[in-house]
Amino acid sequence: MTQISPPISPTQRAADWLARFEAAAAARDADAATALFDDECYWRDLVSFTWNIRTFESRDDIRAMLAARLNDVQPSAFKVEGDATEAGGVTEAWFTFETAVSRGRGLLRLKGDRAWTFLTTMVELKGHEEKKGPRRIKGAEHGVQRGRQTWLEKRQHEQATLGYSEQPNTLIIGGGQGGIGLAARLRRLGVSTIVIEKNARAGDSWRNRYKSLCLHDPVWYDHMPYLPFPDDWPVFCPKDKVGDWLESYTKIMELNYWASTLAEKARWDEEKQEWEVRVVREGQPVTLRPKQLVFALGVSGYPNVPKITGAETFEGTQHHSSKHPGGAAWAGKNCVVLGSNNSAHDICADLWENGANVTMLQRSSTHIAPSDSLMELALGGLYSEAAVAGGISADKADLIFASVPYKIMHTFHIPVYEEMKRRDADLYARLEKAGFMLDFGEDGSGLFMKYLRRGSGYYIDVGPSELVANGRVKLKSGVNIERINPKSVTLSDGSELPADLIVYATGYGSMNGWLADLISPEVADKVGKVWGLGSSTTKDPGPWEGELRNMWKPTQVPHLWFHGGNLHQSRHYSQFLSLQLKARQAGLKTPVYELAPAHHKR
Amino acid sequence: MTQISPPISPTQRAADWLARFEAAAAARDADAATALFDDECYWRDLVSFTWNIRTFESRDDIRAMLAARLNDVQPSAFKVEGDATEAGGVTEAWFTFETAVSRGRGLLRLKGDRAWTFLTTMVELKGHEEKKGPRRIKGAEHGVQRGRQTWLEKRQHEQATLGYSEQPNTLIIGGGQGGIGLAARLRRLGVSTIVIEKNARAGDSWRNRYKSLCLHDPVWYDHMPYLPFPDDWPVFCPKDKVGDWLESYTKIMELNYWASTLAEKARWDEEKQEWEVRVVREGQPVTLRPKQLVFALGVSGYPNVPKITGAETFEGTQHHSSKHPGGAAWAGKNCVVLGSNNSAHDICADLWENGANVTMLQRSSTHIAPSDSLMELALGGLYSEAAVAGGISADKADLIFASVPYKIMHTFHIPVYEEMKRRDADLYARLEKAGFMLDFGEDGSGLFMKYLRRGSGYYIDVGPSELVANGRVKLKSGVNIERINPKSVTLSDGSELPADLIVYATGYGSMNGWLADLISPEVADKVGKVWGLGSSTTKDPGPWEGELRNMWKPTQVPHLWFHGGNLHQSRHYSQFLSLQLKARQAGLKTPVYELAPAHHKR
Repeated sequence: MTQISPPISPTQRAADWLARFEAAAAARDADAATALFDDECYWRDLVSFTWNIRTFESRDDIRAMLAARLNDVQPSAFKVEGDATEAGGVTEAWFTFETAVSRGRGLLRLKGDRAWTFLTTMVELKGHEEKKGPRRIKGAEHGVQRGRQTWLEKRQHEQATLGYSEQPNTLIIGGGQGGIGLAARLRRLGVSTIVIEKNARAGDSWRNRYKSLCLHDPVWYDHMPYLPFPDDWPVFCPKDKVGDWLESYTKIMELNYWASTLAEKARWDEEKQEWEVRVVREGQPVTLRPKQLVFALGVSGYPNVPKITGAETFEGTQHHSSKHPGGAAWAGKNCVVLGSNNSAHDICADLWENGANVTMLQRSSTHIAPSDSLMELALGGLYSEAAVAGGISADKADLIFASVPYKIMHTFHIPVYEEMKRRDADLYARLEKAGFMLDFGEDGSGLFMKYLRRGSGYYIDVGPSELVANGRVKLKSGVNIERINPKSVTLSDGSELPADLIVYATGYGSMNGWLADLISPEVADKVGKVWGLGSSTTKDPGPWEGELRNMWKPTQVPHLWFHGGNLHQSRHYSQFLSLQLKARQAGLKTPVYELAPAHHKR
Repeated sequence: MTQISPPISPTQRAADWLARFEAAAAARDADAATALFDDECYWRDLVSFTWNIRTFESRDDIRAMLAARLNDVQPSAFKVEGDATEAGGVTEAWFTFETAVSRGRGLLRLKGDRAWTFLTTMVELKGHEEKKGPRRIKGAEHGVQRGRQTWLEKRQHEQATLGYSEQPNTLIIGGGQGGIGLAARLRRLGVSTIVIEKNARAGDSWRNRYKSLCLHDPVWYDHMPYLPFPDDWPVFCPKDKVGDWLESYTKIMELNYWASTLAEKARWDEEKQEWEVRVVREGQPVTLRPKQLVFALGVSGYPNVPKITGAETFEGTQHHSSKHPGGAAWAGKNCVVLGSNNSAHDICADLWENGANVTMLQRSSTHIAPSDSLMELALGGLYSEAAVAGGISADKADLIFASVPYKIMHTFHIPVYEEMKRRDADLYARLEKAGFMLDFGEDGSGLFMKYLRRGSGYYIDVGPSELVANGRVKLKSGVNIERINPKSVTLSDGSELPADLIVYATGYGSMNGWLADLISPEVADKVGKVWGLGSSTTKDPGPWEGELRNMWKPTQVPHLWFHGGNLHQSRHYSQFLSLQLKARQAGLKTPVYELAPAHHKR
């Protein structure tokens, strides 16, 4: 009699794999656990196994990590979450798990019965869970007690003492969305934190930008932690609305947010094992002594302003794009914008809309990604109204996003941009006809890979490319400014343009430029280059790192951290950075597995 | 051959009923539609069928309404939403439907194949939907256009002109949670609105209360529309935190919120068909000309301060509970609190905690509901962490709540309070031993029915009852203050109490006391009593109304509306009031079915 087994369900297949993995881990058998991975395999760990952010890209690397870490991590309680799915021979399953000190969530992709990609992420530290949902505090302290302090009194006391008679555990320098979101997470974890921000109000880093600016990423991608935007927010949010949101958010989240505060100098006090940071708060010097120092100054450092011969003789106005207030004053005037990336395009369009005579100077090729195409082709599956309707919250989308190993990420992106080339062929053809130098990244992998590798070289088009294509914004490409004259600029091709305004849309320096000034050049060099994957493409030299350099993870300088990125990254990675900081504040052992070396100075 | 039909599923039973109902409605056959209802039947309509808030409590009433309204309403597209359930012989099903001008949602309960309760609610007006989710605006206006206005410029223009060169469609008097939530809904519906508030900042109506105050209802019950509290908010939120939330909420929702603004006089301009309202904004007179006027001043009117012989001779401090700042100044002093409801208890406890010698004067019996018991026994099924985990959002809970007809609501509540009597027997026994006069409502239906009927007569105990029971707060019950002397009060039993402070925790007058002063006593009388069901219990004279008098629905005075209630009611009913106002602004026909007469002056 022949018995036919029923086909195994995707959920059962995933559960079987996790059970085998758990058994091997319980036996501390790194070989057996490693044997469950496919020939091509990737394990990305966000803090759970490594107290680091690491992607292991081979069985050898996985085996080495497990051999080093299993005794300490003690992974257990692996459990498939919901139903696994199967498509194209790949089984995909969400799962939860525990370690000795934490609870985690992960995403597993199997090819056959072996793991292709494996994502493990830390969700919470046992005994240090956020007091949310069923754990929320009661608030009213029922019963009666003499001398009780109200919420307001406690809050006022904290605001009066923190930074003065009490010291914060963590100091975050930079109060944009990155610093704010991280501080909100640390607040929930009970890590006392001060955020300092040079501007007068939370949100000013957005308000101060050129007035036509809207977010270039769609709303579903941009939520802050804990408090999603209301469901009527526009797809592309105007900058001032984002600014106002951030200001309300700092209040709602009860952050210790010091506006109008500048960091002047910081040094690690080896004896006291704490930082000494001199800041000036609303004109008054204050010395802060945090245990941890986080730089949350965005992806970028200081504005790049090129030194050009004759600049000091210019009789018009010249400023970096970050200082550009908007085009209202420039109707009928001659404006030259140096650069051809995001800010350059938006500023050219704003000037043109205000009636200026505008010329864009393109120095090197630029990747143009029309916003609608980008939304539909690249982001729509994870961050869109359809995704939300399909049950993919921003948090879930973030994890799916995080589960794709950087090593092969470009292979998922190349077809998207092939499709974009077809879909937007007309625009691209007309741009090229107008002389615009286009690219799609060195391997054709487009915008997001350029962003990860070098943080520049692209424009998400929300309309202005049409102005370049149709010549309303004049274009000179393959040129630079050779010399600045009192009323004009002379270009590298020898031509001369009359100029009342020069805008340097020339980007920003490395993030750790700030670090060299605030702490020391030596410390900045020790940290090394921040951002980039080591892809051996332009502005992202090898060796391959597998993760963004120095972001959200321990650096070569203890107690010094970098936080930033776009709204999506700030939201997602602040979770892992906050857990690392909490673990240290709580005195947990946090042995970092394979701290990344610094291959490049700054 | 015998055929056995499979048992019909609850979902199928509900779908069958809705199909029969829809067919009868399509045939404009009121008799056939009415025949689908059980002998005991209730149909509650929130605006969809009646442009009113009405409960029909018999087949005759239902038949009459259908006969009058079917031609106009044209109900259609009834569809069961999700799976129906069955328990105790009652089938319960969510459904959606349409009318000629709107989309709606409802909840049906069948006994057998006939309807026992039927709830129909308006969700949105066709062609006037909120621009949310898939309808959200793009925000960035892609493409380029000369002279475009940014979000900030539009907002600044609106703030500068609305109320001056432009007139709002709706003026809301009162900027507490009620006015704020309604304004947020009207904003989404494109109804231009100004909210005026006498205090300096949104949220001050909470901040200004006694300092120990926390919400007496749990957090799940208290969300504002559109933007739920973060999931780490305490169960019972401290007043200042609520105040700060409301302030951030007005900003996030982009309300035209005029703080420090008093309404002085209003009159209906018959000729221009608009109100003329004189207000003083930050000291400057402004005349507003809205089409609709909403009173959102809470459930209550002016503070009740009893006139007591000798009050003017008192050498200590005397004030109404609404003016009580907290007990810090009263350590070691003799304090007399007149009253025994919510504020009286909280103020007595606060004074005791601050070291005062406190006596509570109880004039008549009070219903005491321990907060924990109330949460677990009365609210937990709909508003709790467990309910949220079970998929019952606040919005869904509100609809379930709304589906219970007021006529039989007490029958659901009586067993809850029977259980509370058992559960908290010890506290109740000790309170009675201390001389406290307890009640559970005239029919034993407890707190919420008292709230609906008279808005007073109860205390949600968060601890202070223990102080009364154990005598730390002294109690004199069955007495009133007969006479006030320079340093004492003489009670109605002839005894005398030394007094440095007298707090009048004596409640508030009728909501339309404001109305008499702002418009005229005649208009206040025409509107008649506000709040209460006509239950023929204390302070709620008959005849039976079936709905709260004048709340959230058309009144006897056209273009004049009342909004208020607790956070739950403000959230839920603001939906229906906003849709009524939108329909009028959009010029839709809104024939009100059976406008409620005013049986009582004020």
